[in-house]
Amino acid sequence: MKRKICVVVTARPSYARIKTALEAIRAHSDLELQLVVAASAVLERYGDALKYIKADGFDVKSTVFMVLEGENLVTSAKSTGLGMMELATVFDNLKPDMVITIADRYETLATAAAASYMNIPLVHMQGGEVTGSIDEKVRHAVTKLADYHFTCTEIASERVKKMGEHPEHVYTTGCPSIDIAASVLKAPELNFDPFLKYGGVGAPVNLKDGYVVVLQHPVTTEYELSRKHIIETLYGVKDADLATLWFWPNVDAGSDGTSKGIRSFRESERPGNFHFFKNMEASDFLKLLCNSKAIIGNSSVAIRECSFLGVPAVNIGTRQSGRERGKNVIDVDYDRAEILAAIREHIAGGKRKRSNIYGDGNAGVRIAELLSKVELHFDKKLAY
Amino acid sequence: MKRKICVVVTARPSYARIKTALEAIRAHSDLELQLVVAASAVLERYGDALKYIKADGFDVKSTVFMVLEGENLVTSAKSTGLGMMELATVFDNLKPDMVITIADRYETLATAAAASYMNIPLVHMQGGEVTGSIDEKVRHAVTKLADYHFTCTEIASERVKKMGEHPEHVYTTGCPSIDIAASVLKAPELNFDPFLKYGGVGAPVNLKDGYVVVLQHPVTTEYELSRKHIIETLYGVKDADLATLWFWPNVDAGSDGTSKGIRSFRESERPGNFHFFKNMEASDFLKLLCNSKAIIGNSSVAIRECSFLGVPAVNIGTRQSGRERGKNVIDVDYDRAEILAAIREHIAGGKRKRSNIYGDGNAGVRIAELLSKVELHFDKKLAY
Amino acid sequence: MKRKICVVVTARPSYARIKTALEAIRAHSDLELQLVVAASAVLERYGDALKYIKADGFDVKSTVFMVLEGENLVTSAKSTGLGMMELATVFDNLKPDMVITIADRYETLATAAAASYMNIPLVHMQGGEVTGSIDEKVRHAVTKLADYHFTCTEIASERVKKMGEHPEHVYTTGCPSIDIAASVLKAPELNFDPFLKYGGVGAPVNLKDGYVVVLQHPVTTEYELSRKHIIETLYGVKDADLATLWFWPNVDAGSDGTSKGIRSFRESERPGNFHFFKNMEASDFLKLLCNSKAIIGNSSVAIRECSFLGVPAVNIGTRQSGRERGKNVIDVDYDRAEILAAIREHIAGGKRKRSNIYGDGNAGVRIAELLSKVELHFDKKLAY
Amino acid sequence: MKRKICVVVTARPSYARIKTALEAIRAHSDLELQLVVAASAVLERYGDALKYIKADGFDVKSTVFMVLEGENLVTSAKSTGLGMMELATVFDNLKPDMVITIADRYETLATAAAASYMNIPLVHMQGGEVTGSIDEKVRHAVTKLADYHFTCTEIASERVKKMGEHPEHVYTTGCPSIDIAASVLKAPELNFDPFLKYGGVGAPVNLKDGYVVVLQHPVTTEYELSRKHIIETLYGVKDADLATLWFWPNVDAGSDGTSKGIRSFRESERPGNFHFFKNMEASDFLKLLCNSKAIIGNSSVAIRECSFLGVPAVNIGTRQSGRERGKNVIDVDYDRAEILAAIREHIAGGKRKRSNIYGDGNAGVRIAELLSKVELHFDKKLAY
Repeated sequence: MKRKICVVVTARPSYARIKTALEAIRAHSDLELQLVVAASAVLERYGDALKYIKADGFDVKSTVFMVLEGENLVTSAKSTGLGMMELATVFDNLKPDMVITIADRYETLATAAAASYMNIPLVHMQGGEVTGSIDEKVRHAVTKLADYHFTCTEIASERVKKMGEHPEHVYTTGCPSIDIAASVLKAPELNFDPFLKYGGVGAPVNLKDGYVVVLQHPVTTEYELSRKHIIETLYGVKDADLATLWFWPNVDAGSDGTSKGIRSFRESERPGNFHFFKNMEASDFLKLLCNSKAIIGNSSVAIRECSFLGVPAVNIGTRQSGRERGKNVIDVDYDRAEILAAIREHIAGGKRKRSNIYGDGNAGVRIAELLSKVELHFDKKLAY
Repeated sequence: MKRKICVVVTARPSYARIKTALEAIRAHSDLELQLVVAASAVLERYGDALKYIKADGFDVKSTVFMVLEGENLVTSAKSTGLGMMELATVFDNLKPDMVITIADRYETLATAAAASYMNIPLVHMQGGEVTGSIDEKVRHAVTKLADYHFTCTEIASERVKKMGEHPEHVYTTGCPSIDIAASVLKAPELNFDPFLKYGGVGAPVNLKDGYVVVLQHPVTTEYELSRKHIIETLYGVKDADLATLWFWPNVDAGSDGTSKGIRSFRESERPGNFHFFKNMEASDFLKLLCNSKAIIGNSSVAIRECSFLGVPAVNIGTRQSGRERGKNVIDVDYDRAEILAAIREHIAGGKRKRSNIYGDGNAGVRIAELLSKVELHFDKKLAY
Repeated sequence: MKRKICVVVTARPSYARIKTALEAIRAHSDLELQLVVAASAVLERYGDALKYIKADGFDVKSTVFMVLEGENLVTSAKSTGLGMMELATVFDNLKPDMVITIADRYETLATAAAASYMNIPLVHMQGGEVTGSIDEKVRHAVTKLADYHFTCTEIASERVKKMGEHPEHVYTTGCPSIDIAASVLKAPELNFDPFLKYGGVGAPVNLKDGYVVVLQHPVTTEYELSRKHIIETLYGVKDADLATLWFWPNVDAGSDGTSKGIRSFRESERPGNFHFFKNMEASDFLKLLCNSKAIIGNSSVAIRECSFLGVPAVNIGTRQSGRERGKNVIDVDYDRAEILAAIREHIAGGKRKRSNIYGDGNAGVRIAELLSKVELHFDKKLAY
Repeated sequence: MKRKICVVVTARPSYARIKTALEAIRAHSDLELQLVVAASAVLERYGDALKYIKADGFDVKSTVFMVLEGENLVTSAKSTGLGMMELATVFDNLKPDMVITIADRYETLATAAAASYMNIPLVHMQGGEVTGSIDEKVRHAVTKLADYHFTCTEIASERVKKMGEHPEHVYTTGCPSIDIAASVLKAPELNFDPFLKYGGVGAPVNLKDGYVVVLQHPVTTEYELSRKHIIETLYGVKDADLATLWFWPNVDAGSDGTSKGIRSFRESERPGNFHFFKNMEASDFLKLLCNSKAIIGNSSVAIRECSFLGVPAVNIGTRQSGRERGKNVIDVDYDRAEILAAIREHIAGGKRKRSNIYGDGNAGVRIAELLSKVELHFDKKLAY
């Protein structure tokens, strides 16, 4: 009988970080994929990952609405609780042999806790990394609930072991998102018109003479400040006077502040060379980055995929602090002038040296193989 | 303005482990106590801690029903999710400056996650210990969510630090339950009639010639086995042929198996020298232990309070494995013969040497003092 | 394409009232049955209807734990809310063409509201009846949410229409439970040993010289009184000095009071001619009734199936007040003496005249046929 | 001891319909007001009623986030279920003597069911009216759960009685929103600058030469059509070529379609004489209406307050069909040309005759008086 592997995808970015593993699980003769799509991944407002998942031909076993309106700290907690309740019902009906939870989003804990409590062997992907904000707490809490750890980097694996996890259950698989980056790198030319294909807000901008990409999320522990922060970035980028492709942040406490900042900037500045997108297929997004002058903001894509691709990155503020990085990153504060200076330095410097720290492009297949081979267990003890 | 300290009590045993701290918080001039009683602590079937809490004169700010029927793994997960949702509402209305979560019960994670997500500085009591079952996962996951760690033993503090918590936020306070044990030790004589005061099932048994106390909980990762396990204990104790005071287990996945084992034993054996209690005030229970020949089962009381009191303990199975212990404990397997042998060895050996590993009797006051002094923060990073 | 008919069964008694309709739906060439089992129907403690449903060969699409512990008024409300949330997810994944909700249990409203809000045409079975307690409010509220009404009696249909429902959507189908009674009536001899087949508590009693059956539920609007009420019944029946088969009540706010009354009676009286059952397959239960001297308590079975079967019934208290009844019922108050007198009157009078008020034995097939034929709609307005 | 009256406000419009009653309850010597604010009433995106409630000096006992993201039929059902769960906890902690639920919003059922199940006497305001959509089902279902009915019109009272409610518990109090209208009518001049006071989107428009007000909600049973419908209105109003003050709709399944229609209209048409508001204090809104040429859309304000004020109304589509109306209303279909024609007819005709069908301006005081006087009960039966 095939091992039933239940994967819960709860957000657009998480899908990109698991997609090649999903493909490899589906293709594996000893595995059966049980895909559950929940939280912001089923909401149009946050990029409707479900649409892309279906377009990619995946069979979805269950969808769960679980995000409360309010986008604040209270509703993050409640959404997670609601998700835990509903996912328990889903797992009870699907009876998976293993559950996979991805990364460190607030609702990731719902998947992890439901599976752990139900004695279903739990795999955590992307543990052992260090960043700022609530993600940091959630990520390590999930590590303590998980039975297997599939990390992206060697240092992450070391940290997971130091936290008391048994070395034989810690595997450095690399990140499946790098698999997509690797295939993009084989044919990196921009072979689609982003404005035609994805619409967005604002007139099309001229991409011929180079452009930058911006993606900045609110930081949950700095909730009140998200509007102030985005304003610095908006003006820093405006000062650079480049064609700018700006991506809307995903759902999180504080994104309302971010959204408002962007809206008021648009109203008051009416920036002619800015275009705003809601989201983009992962591979298209990476192609766009490959051909850009730089990525600006606080997205982990800038640190992870862009290190592999060699795309210059201006990383703003605390959100990625602590995360391992390649040579492609300049770190700056929430400061218009610092942001502008870093953009200029990157524009002057051109492409950066590529790095394999986050994976070699074969994570998906490696993960599926592990899932078919590891001995099933759900009882563990601190290693010390 | 006083610091508002919100304590969530979710079970009868947790109350005993926080009671002297609650008293010290209430008495502290710089602190305001916000007491929330939830989960099995509001259910008559599990000892109705709420009744005792009110009898002790505490003002309860909010009560929350959150335990789902079924007593299985699915319902544990769902109860926790439900609790997370409702406690978020409670915290949103009470606006505490700090939240305290106790130990490692499945629903403890609800308190911890709700507070963490809401950026409320979180204190975890009794982290860093090592045991078996889902408690182990929950305990360390809560450590990773918590901002302050008030541990019971030095070794526990060391483990918390090794897991990557910053040493300046780790305090070895000792366990408040030892405070109660310390005051019991000052006047240990059995000054009440347990049958009159607490009723229970079965005829009164003769306590004059010595008696043993039994308390055995189901082990969640061994769900299916709980009935088999309790049967071994029932017959092991029966073979010892001593007056026996048996305490009903608290709510948990699997307790139905335990309950059924006890009921079928009672029906078939009609044991004349067994008396069954649902629960008892913490200090009365400790007095009963002080005057007993031994405690048998898998309760942590046998390891913790009884090490301080010097009461001989027969610890059965995996539930307490990994927990630090004094000289008072003999560990045995789920095996009728082993259990009987250990009881006989203890009966022959008499009282054991007392130990302070779990506290010196001043934990409550020490905790209140720390709560009034520590600098408030809710953002942290792995120490390595 | 077949019409997908989703039926939500939430309790042991509801299953008996829908079973022949389920069979007819399953057998119908234009219908596809989507069976969901939830609430107390998945709990062992309340008869584990799920086990019987599976034994009857039904394919269960989803099971949902949704009953909160506490068995009080707060937890009834919360269980219903939880059910509404989870059933919405279930319906969203199953995408039924119609949903069927049964009768008037507190959690029935969860099914009804979830379906109505989701614009899924809703069929209500057993509307238009009049009884006491919260059931009364729930039943008529569900009528106002439902798009089709399949009632048991002509008077019920009249009431539904008077409440403002459009006559063309009101059908007097009869109750499927009468279908089972009709088939039992074809072979009414007691062809099984109830003690061997169902176990239960207490020694077997002698059925040869006649026996009575008792089934008394707590009344939710008289929550505090449930213990007092059951005591009157226990002693009234005891006074009759007949072999007695007593059935445990189903889950409801107050059943704890009822349970306690029964337990304390057993402890103090140790009644030799009482045997206690948890539950029984519907057809076995009806056979038992067919061969009994009388049914005592406040179960609707006494009013409904027993009118068809002609079994004498002593109906106690307010729970069934207002419900149409045949000649087989004597109504009494919660009063030991009245109960005894009515039992004696029945014993003297023997079997009663049969009545078809609750159905003719063909409800199941009639219902399936209607489900395949009615035009789908979910928008309605008060008829006046 | 004062009677504790718990009122649950779940939306901005509901607040306007209860405000004078809240004031009268607060002022009444025999009553204590327990105000709970929940659902969209705590969300900034839907007008943040909480802010206005606090500004009006009310003490809020509890706030509850309970709206799920998605604004579709599934999330309406789930939000209601979530609300039922949480409000049960709130009621359990507040222990009110009576609960008031308002009108017919989807989440209104949460309040009604929680209170009914908990045996708390329930007052329903605004029952007995007839409209389209899910509101219709919810309104009458709440009637069947409620113990007291405070209706707005004589015809509504008659309908409630016909549905089987006992006449002695049905009171025609009139609508508290008319109380506000009555006080506005005493000083109807537009004494504030709406653009300065409420901001909104778009340049200020010239109000001097007359203006119209538009407010159109999506209709939940016509979910898919909401965008198409709003487009007809947008162009119908545009064709009238008048200064236009457009109000954003409140949260409901389908409001996303409505929002999108408005946004795309703004992008493509850039209408110079349209200004968009999110919301306004009730009394300011009424003043704005008093001075307008007409109100257009499907808001009940057009039917209710505007009948009292004599403001001409163009009522579009099915949402208000069945509702009693005065002489001020012209009903039209979702049709650009019909809408335009009706606007022109009203502009030509001027103010309409005032009517008291929805109240005489003293509802608030009348309601408080009733609340202090009615005998408490929570058990009822169909009247026939």
